[in-house]
Amino acid sequence: MVGGKDPLPNGRVCICGDRIEDVSVRENGPVPEANVVIQAEGAIILPGLVNAHSHSPMTLFRGLADDLPLKTWLFDYIFPAEAKYLNPDSVYWGCLLACLEMIASGTTTAVDSYFFADEIVRAADKAGMRALVAQGVIDFPAPGVPDPKRNLDVGAAFLERWIGFSDLITPGLFCHSPVTCSENTLRQACDISHRFGLPMQTHLSETQEETEEIRKKAQVDPVFYLDALGVLDGNLIAAHAVHLSDEEIDLLSRREVKVAHCPESNMKLGSGIAPVAKMLGKGVTVGLGTDGCASNNNLDLLREMDTAAKLAKVAYLDPTLLDAESVVKMATIGGAQLIGLENMIGTIEEGKKADIVIISTDTPHMTPTYNPYSQLVYAATGADVRDAIINGRVVYRDRQFTTLDSHEIFANIGRICGEIA
Amino acid sequence: MVGGKDPLPNGRVCICGDRIEDVSVRENGPVPEANVVIQAEGAIILPGLVNAHSHSPMTLFRGLADDLPLKTWLFDYIFPAEAKYLNPDSVYWGCLLACLEMIASGTTTAVDSYFFADEIVRAADKAGMRALVAQGVIDFPAPGVPDPKRNLDVGAAFLERWIGFSDLITPGLFCHSPVTCSENTLRQACDISHRFGLPMQTHLSETQEETEEIRKKAQVDPVFYLDALGVLDGNLIAAHAVHLSDEEIDLLSRREVKVAHCPESNMKLGSGIAPVAKMLGKGVTVGLGTDGCASNNNLDLLREMDTAAKLAKVAYLDPTLLDAESVVKMATIGGAQLIGLENMIGTIEEGKKADIVIISTDTPHMTPTYNPYSQLVYAATGADVRDAIINGRVVYRDRQFTTLDSHEIFANIGRICGEIA
Repeated sequence: MVGGKDPLPNGRVCICGDRIEDVSVRENGPVPEANVVIQAEGAIILPGLVNAHSHSPMTLFRGLADDLPLKTWLFDYIFPAEAKYLNPDSVYWGCLLACLEMIASGTTTAVDSYFFADEIVRAADKAGMRALVAQGVIDFPAPGVPDPKRNLDVGAAFLERWIGFSDLITPGLFCHSPVTCSENTLRQACDISHRFGLPMQTHLSETQEETEEIRKKAQVDPVFYLDALGVLDGNLIAAHAVHLSDEEIDLLSRREVKVAHCPESNMKLGSGIAPVAKMLGKGVTVGLGTDGCASNNNLDLLREMDTAAKLAKVAYLDPTLLDAESVVKMATIGGAQLIGLENMIGTIEEGKKADIVIISTDTPHMTPTYNPYSQLVYAATGADVRDAIINGRVVYRDRQFTTLDSHEIFANIGRICGEIA
Repeated sequence: MVGGKDPLPNGRVCICGDRIEDVSVRENGPVPEANVVIQAEGAIILPGLVNAHSHSPMTLFRGLADDLPLKTWLFDYIFPAEAKYLNPDSVYWGCLLACLEMIASGTTTAVDSYFFADEIVRAADKAGMRALVAQGVIDFPAPGVPDPKRNLDVGAAFLERWIGFSDLITPGLFCHSPVTCSENTLRQACDISHRFGLPMQTHLSETQEETEEIRKKAQVDPVFYLDALGVLDGNLIAAHAVHLSDEEIDLLSRREVKVAHCPESNMKLGSGIAPVAKMLGKGVTVGLGTDGCASNNNLDLLREMDTAAKLAKVAYLDPTLLDAESVVKMATIGGAQLIGLENMIGTIEEGKKADIVIISTDTPHMTPTYNPYSQLVYAATGADVRDAIINGRVVYRDRQFTTLDSHEIFANIGRICGEIA
């Protein structure tokens, strides 16, 4: 998985502190001295996965409302549930449940965004996860931000509070979408993000309907609209990016905007198929995301890899599109590039931070293994993850969590979701 | 899961011999006397899944060749590998590997078809699986049938040999496709199947290209072509059925043809998106299949359920299509109807055969559970299957196989696939 090289058979990875010290072929000779040795014989050692778009506390609403028309789902179920049940306590425990799920399925870095984002920082920190955690900014009354006039102040205070807090967690702003945020909000959120030197997230052209709404309002396509506002730059992470003209893809590429591709959410909500192979062909940086649990309904990035590869092929009736290696890269180094951490994580290379997962292959569905990329994308699921290391710390060992108490989390989720059902 | 009823909370299923004796709500009182008690507190008890289309021994070629143009994949990789490496020994062990994978992911009945089908019968019988096992009939030299002139004789002898062999295994013919089989072969295979009172399988309109080929040859759409030959009836199981006109769907419905929907294979090979919601709307019986491992690359029907639901929605940008309950039914009673066993399996009802799987929900990704159908389709994978019972026999208990020796199977697969790689 080292950039530009073939997978290393019989590899050995040595970690010192939070960094990868050595990557080499395993010898028959003695094992170097180490405090901890994790045998990965016959397994696949993979860079930790980067979930490029999630709303982690939405685990609380997993399966609450499915198979509904988009507006019924959103206005009759999700928005009311968010208004009624979100508070610092529920967001904290919902995010911890997401951390359990992400760690157990190979995600070591989450690009997350929601409301009550302080609690997401606290939960991710407790879990030992790497994360970009963004506070939601929207021009409507929102959970924890009842007065939309204060949304940018709340956002800026969030950045102020958490910047430099830890090596693993970066705060950010999540400007909900060009439909739900005014021009002024978008511009100011962009300015604030630049001032702090932090990435900004938004939803972009997820549905045909919102794309039309922008066209009607601004007389141009959404990407050109954002460009005219001056917010289209390498600092912007655009989630979904489903309904795009070729000219918009070109502009995203020229402006070095990063895209978070969420195929399963786009399928489940009937939003459409993002032109991901085209974007990659035009040199756009693309990461892979699950979106929140209300629209997927899982945070399993290995399953998302399978869907991404297959959906790209059927969209153009071309089985050569988005090959397995490209998809593995999208979910690892692609996600790292999305948040500007490509020199720190995303591959297993000497000197990089030790974010690593180990995937078992001793199961029927992983047998035989001719090609590890194919196996990861088309055969594996998150359940095949056996161990996970984040920043040199073993957070999951032999399928046991070392940083989190799953019983405590399940008990609190039971308490919170018992009210919701 | 009982037909027409809501899922039963706190249910209890009593099995006597090979049959379901009683389905009731669990009392706080004493458990009825039983030799074996399987606690399923907090778990989901589900009818065993029916894989409506598989070529089980193709586990041997899992991940051997992916992301290639269809003809390169087929003619440069799969056909040569089949010609070189298929023999009774490899088919037997490849099928046993598939049985491990299917049982461990909740499939209790397979609608299977391939060459050297005697070995599939032997393997399925050893595993204790329920199966319709079909011998391939094709007008080319094939593995085990070097002389295509003998393909129907070989097929008829196969039916003769295995009909009545066991309660669990039904033999059948698999007439490869209207493109690879002549009119005469199709007609005679249909006649033979009728003579034995056994279903016949075929591939139908999987790709645009083969659909065009039939149109060119016969001047009509493939479904009308098969109708003109007299083979289009309730005895026919048509796999894929991707490229269909509305008139063809109507005719499939009128003739009571059964359809095996294989969305992941259709996506991965870039074949297209089957109009599954339309077929269901027209009353066509549809089961859900994984296809073989060279084009998926797994046999996990729970993952296939997720893909089926999501693909149907994105195909028409309508999130209400193919709701979770419909998909669960497609993978259970739908598959049972496909092979005429709807009075025997496919639901958990008193008097039916005891084909049952138990799905754990004590994991992060299965928490919370508001709606079991949603959870099964959008959150679960095969890895959540904890126990499986086929025909009253516990074949998988606490994730351990009781009928198969996985070490022996892995060792033999290693031996066989070591030659292939």
